[in-house]
Amino acid sequence: MGFTDVDQLTVNTIRVLAADATARANSGHPGAPMGMAPVAQVLWNNIMRFNPKNPHWVNRDRFVLSNGHGCMLQYALLHLYGFGLTIDDLKAFRSVDSITPGHPESHDTPGIEVTTGPLGQGICNAVGLAIAQAHTAATFNRDGFDLFNNYTYCFLGDGCLMEGVSSEASSLAGHLQLGNLIAVYDDNHISIDGDTNCAFTEDVVKRYEAYGWHVIVVADGDHNLEGIYSAIKEAQSVKDKPTLIKLRTIIGFGSLQQGTHGVHGSPLKADDIKQLKEKFGFNPDESFAVPQAVYDLTAKKVAEGAAAENEWNALFAKYAEKYPAEHADLTRRLKGDLPEGWEKKLPVYTPTDAAVASRKLSEVVLSKIEEIIPELIGGSADLTSSNLTRWKGAVDFQPPSTGLGDYSGRYIRYGVREHGMGAIMNGLAAYGTQIPYGGTFLNFVSYGAGAVRLSALSRVRVIWVATHDSIGLGEDGPTHQPIETLAHFRALPNCMVWRPADGNETSAAYYVALTSKHTPSIMALSRQNLPQLENSTIEHAIKGGYVVHEDKSANITLVSTGSEVGICVEAVKYLAENHNVKARVVSLPCFEVFDAQPKEYRLSVLPDGIPSLSVEVMSTMGWERYTHEQFGLNRFGASGPYKDVYKKFEFTPEGISKRAVATIDYWKDVPNIRSPINRAFQQLI
Amino acid sequence: MGFTDVDQLTVNTIRVLAADATARANSGHPGAPMGMAPVAQVLWNNIMRFNPKNPHWVNRDRFVLSNGHGCMLQYALLHLYGFGLTIDDLKAFRSVDSITPGHPESHDTPGIEVTTGPLGQGICNAVGLAIAQAHTAATFNRDGFDLFNNYTYCFLGDGCLMEGVSSEASSLAGHLQLGNLIAVYDDNHISIDGDTNCAFTEDVVKRYEAYGWHVIVVADGDHNLEGIYSAIKEAQSVKDKPTLIKLRTIIGFGSLQQGTHGVHGSPLKADDIKQLKEKFGFNPDESFAVPQAVYDLTAKKVAEGAAAENEWNALFAKYAEKYPAEHADLTRRLKGDLPEGWEKKLPVYTPTDAAVASRKLSEVVLSKIEEIIPELIGGSADLTSSNLTRWKGAVDFQPPSTGLGDYSGRYIRYGVREHGMGAIMNGLAAYGTQIPYGGTFLNFVSYGAGAVRLSALSRVRVIWVATHDSIGLGEDGPTHQPIETLAHFRALPNCMVWRPADGNETSAAYYVALTSKHTPSIMALSRQNLPQLENSTIEHAIKGGYVVHEDKSANITLVSTGSEVGICVEAVKYLAENHNVKARVVSLPCFEVFDAQPKEYRLSVLPDGIPSLSVEVMSTMGWERYTHEQFGLNRFGASGPYKDVYKKFEFTPEGISKRAVATIDYWKDVPNIRSPINRAFQQLI
Repeated sequence: MGFTDVDQLTVNTIRVLAADATARANSGHPGAPMGMAPVAQVLWNNIMRFNPKNPHWVNRDRFVLSNGHGCMLQYALLHLYGFGLTIDDLKAFRSVDSITPGHPESHDTPGIEVTTGPLGQGICNAVGLAIAQAHTAATFNRDGFDLFNNYTYCFLGDGCLMEGVSSEASSLAGHLQLGNLIAVYDDNHISIDGDTNCAFTEDVVKRYEAYGWHVIVVADGDHNLEGIYSAIKEAQSVKDKPTLIKLRTIIGFGSLQQGTHGVHGSPLKADDIKQLKEKFGFNPDESFAVPQAVYDLTAKKVAEGAAAENEWNALFAKYAEKYPAEHADLTRRLKGDLPEGWEKKLPVYTPTDAAVASRKLSEVVLSKIEEIIPELIGGSADLTSSNLTRWKGAVDFQPPSTGLGDYSGRYIRYGVREHGMGAIMNGLAAYGTQIPYGGTFLNFVSYGAGAVRLSALSRVRVIWVATHDSIGLGEDGPTHQPIETLAHFRALPNCMVWRPADGNETSAAYYVALTSKHTPSIMALSRQNLPQLENSTIEHAIKGGYVVHEDKSANITLVSTGSEVGICVEAVKYLAENHNVKARVVSLPCFEVFDAQPKEYRLSVLPDGIPSLSVEVMSTMGWERYTHEQFGLNRFGASGPYKDVYKKFEFTPEGISKRAVATIDYWKDVPNIRSPINRAFQQLI
Repeated sequence: MGFTDVDQLTVNTIRVLAADATARANSGHPGAPMGMAPVAQVLWNNIMRFNPKNPHWVNRDRFVLSNGHGCMLQYALLHLYGFGLTIDDLKAFRSVDSITPGHPESHDTPGIEVTTGPLGQGICNAVGLAIAQAHTAATFNRDGFDLFNNYTYCFLGDGCLMEGVSSEASSLAGHLQLGNLIAVYDDNHISIDGDTNCAFTEDVVKRYEAYGWHVIVVADGDHNLEGIYSAIKEAQSVKDKPTLIKLRTIIGFGSLQQGTHGVHGSPLKADDIKQLKEKFGFNPDESFAVPQAVYDLTAKKVAEGAAAENEWNALFAKYAEKYPAEHADLTRRLKGDLPEGWEKKLPVYTPTDAAVASRKLSEVVLSKIEEIIPELIGGSADLTSSNLTRWKGAVDFQPPSTGLGDYSGRYIRYGVREHGMGAIMNGLAAYGTQIPYGGTFLNFVSYGAGAVRLSALSRVRVIWVATHDSIGLGEDGPTHQPIETLAHFRALPNCMVWRPADGNETSAAYYVALTSKHTPSIMALSRQNLPQLENSTIEHAIKGGYVVHEDKSANITLVSTGSEVGICVEAVKYLAENHNVKARVVSLPCFEVFDAQPKEYRLSVLPDGIPSLSVEVMSTMGWERYTHEQFGLNRFGASGPYKDVYKKFEFTPEGISKRAVATIDYWKDVPNIRSPINRAFQQLI
């Protein structure tokens, strides 16, 4: 390749910038940036294709820093390669309201593809980006129109490899033969506890070969730019396997403490930075200095990137002429918009329709909309027949050589890998041409909590089809029955937790999930059949909460979700017949969405003047925000046929009525009962 | 070995019992029990050492069914081998309040070592049991007193291998050279989505060799009892590596649907069961029939087991003479009791003591008590220097050949494997001679949520040292700052979440955590320094909540935890000086423990008559149960120095005061304000 002194100077500039920024912040991780600067520079300058003037160009190569704590590497690159990060931004590293936070966040910083830092996530996101590329290429490329041919590059460290989530996604990536995925493992022998020989002595090469990856070892990642370049080119040439490049580096290269844990997560001391700058030919009295030769080098790359996108745009324009429908479809997808009129496909029910499990109602929705929303790409963590996530006739996303599907397929067999699925979906969503959903039991969404959190933080549209949502799953018992799960995800900011009570509510849940471009959703769906409710409509349910049964002279409001709403409706009769009590019933399928309604509306649903009782077969935590009293299950469930389990815990019209009567009695002496909707001040959101 | 027809008959009896029980329950998984019956019978009858009359004999071999959905295999074995499970118990499979629930639960059923079902957990528990064995042996065995030499056996399926958590623990087990661990992989090529070739095509043998395991392949697990026996004996002979036996079986062996997904998770049809019984020489008109020859065979084994324990007891009695101190220590540990007077070692602080971060206070506790509580076995998921979990001079638990420690060491280097650590700790606790704790950032306890849930469900004493507990960690930013985490685990039944505010509260948290034999704890600990509070004592704090600052004429109660309690105390002054408002301050370090106090006490802490305001820098969810108004953070945090972050979100004396004034104003017209402690009826717990 003929690397010159300027390449080396750029490498050292990145190292010095990382040292300067962490020192100024008095916080952060200089070690990884300094160790990985060589491979980063080779990759960004000599391999990757991107246009910093348009970080959203869809056929750009993707770069993921799975060891996100090394983000000063990425920030330095984004500065040098013209993504709009200024020296002042680097100086603001790790300070409040900067675009250079302690770990890279995709929603704030141009050029950051995915939010990383929690270890193991980035490599899974990269698998998702690679699946998305393969799928988009198979869907849109045509003879002479190689529109989608980008690679996904990922840097990862020992920590990422130790996290189980990376094993899940890496095993799947090997199975899927993702030749467009190239990962660089920073083999620096150091983690926070010291030398990796204290806990991580597995044979990584052999492990990745076992997954079906191509593995290349580069022995000197500190100096051998040619070797790094050749390895990446070799990786590109392997079309039917993802590649792992095991790159031996010295962490904190150039520091007096290089190769030790001391340089991992603490800034370099002043005298260390001084010697570093002197060693690399920088003025030790200057900070954040970038030689002009470096800017000149990277400016060339920036110009090339702009030209590359121009060329692609020309091709895309020709594509528009020859394939106008595909062009229009793709253009629409890239905006995140859904096809006009898609919502008319959503099924609508009337109270006379049969009782149906909401997991089945979800299947009906998916089957009705899959054709009009071709960007929907689904899957399940090996529970397809339970989650009902696969529409009839779906094609599996599989390497064609398996004979089980092809890359245009829209159904992913994730295997029993919930956490990996969640993190892969984040990557799929980040690519920009697809809307991912994935199925598992609600209880096992918790396995993927790390990924769900990043969906919410990075504001991506991802849908979990979480069936078997309560003790209503019955026989599988307490190991599988969620108690704390809804409270957990309801407490997560920017995450919609839906627990629909019938068909119209299920349609509404999908309506809001699909039209919310920047919020993930979890659909908690029943195994057991649920009746279609009287006052349930899509229009009502998309408000997150509404009145299912009104009674202006009611003594109490029963507030419930999902499978318990129907029982509350039965309880209304029981209360009238046995206790001469009048009750209203409110369905509250999504707290997050209900909270966003105007206060006047919320008060009309949960009014002042009468007490309220929530009914939900799991933790009562969080219900105090909406109701005066709570009937729930603050213990683990039981294994048995679901009707027996409901009876054991008194989630019956009688059991509900007993507590409704107690509630009315307890609140009878309180004048002017205030709805919990009323609050003394606004929350920080 | 000379297996006879009776061995084969026992194998078939297990198969038929599994078919009968799932058919009767009309629910469950016959496939795995029918496929694994041969290896189970060989292992239980010809290899394992146990005494069913005392399932708690400490040197018994441990058996873990990681593919817990196949629990009818285990229940059949427990019946045949005399653990007290009756035929009626088998008939009650998957019915409410039986001891044969849908997945095995250790607290209810004799002979079940650990609660399994959530895939991947059991193999990690087995790693924990094996670590515990190695550690206990290294600690207590003496020349001529090989007290601890049991093996841990684990069955697992494709699902367990796909779950990342199994990768974490398996990699660590290889590193730790656990020769006492023998796992049998049921290689039946079937998962719920069908043939494993749709998602799981990695080379398992190679992967486990990469982890440092010894791997044996047995090609015919359906008939070759000799081959199975030899493989296990070979595994026993490999002392410096765990062994994985890859056993090819046919799922649902004997069924008309054998080898297909149809037999995985659904009962066999009546005609299928009929032909199965005929094929195996059983009367098709009888159900739950066990031939007398089978009982005779297993009775022999039961007698051998009792004799083995007798022999061991005799040895242990001799040990008592020669090593009275060790004998006494071990006897105490097995009861779960702590050494008398241990609590006197807990550090006590006065308000004039310096402000200290609670992660540091936790380190002080551990350092003070580690000597008197030798069963404490700690570790960290590669955050030792951040979690401060390692007392000075601790020896690492490492294979002696590494030169880094030995098996008597009490500090485990878990690597970056939070979920694996949690599941391993469940196994450590289940062994019976140790109390495990493990460190990570609070945010990453979520990675281990699947394991934490099982700690709670299976009622084990496990402690998470969860540092960096809030936005107070500062610069690392939103990817690392918990918002939903406390709400999540507070909603989990039987889980204590502690967020101590100072030194005495930290001591109290450890006091309750260590004396609660059947409840796991999560210690949420600060990175930043916290002042020692006025009214804080261990005696107060062990109640889960108490008054830090009393004022009988107060206008409001401020209720807080951890790092915000000190700020609330400052707010009292601010309110008095700037708003002429009097405030009480309550610290509520543990909801779960506070809830267990008498109502009278709780009302004295959170009294009627004045409004209350909670202050905690994370999700307000759950606080409505204790306070009238809530000041929290229902959004993600920010990256920056922690004081800047606190200021940004107004968690300052001024910001708290503003909301206190709003609270008082809002509640001023309400007569007889009722404390939220008052409820209309009791919760189901």
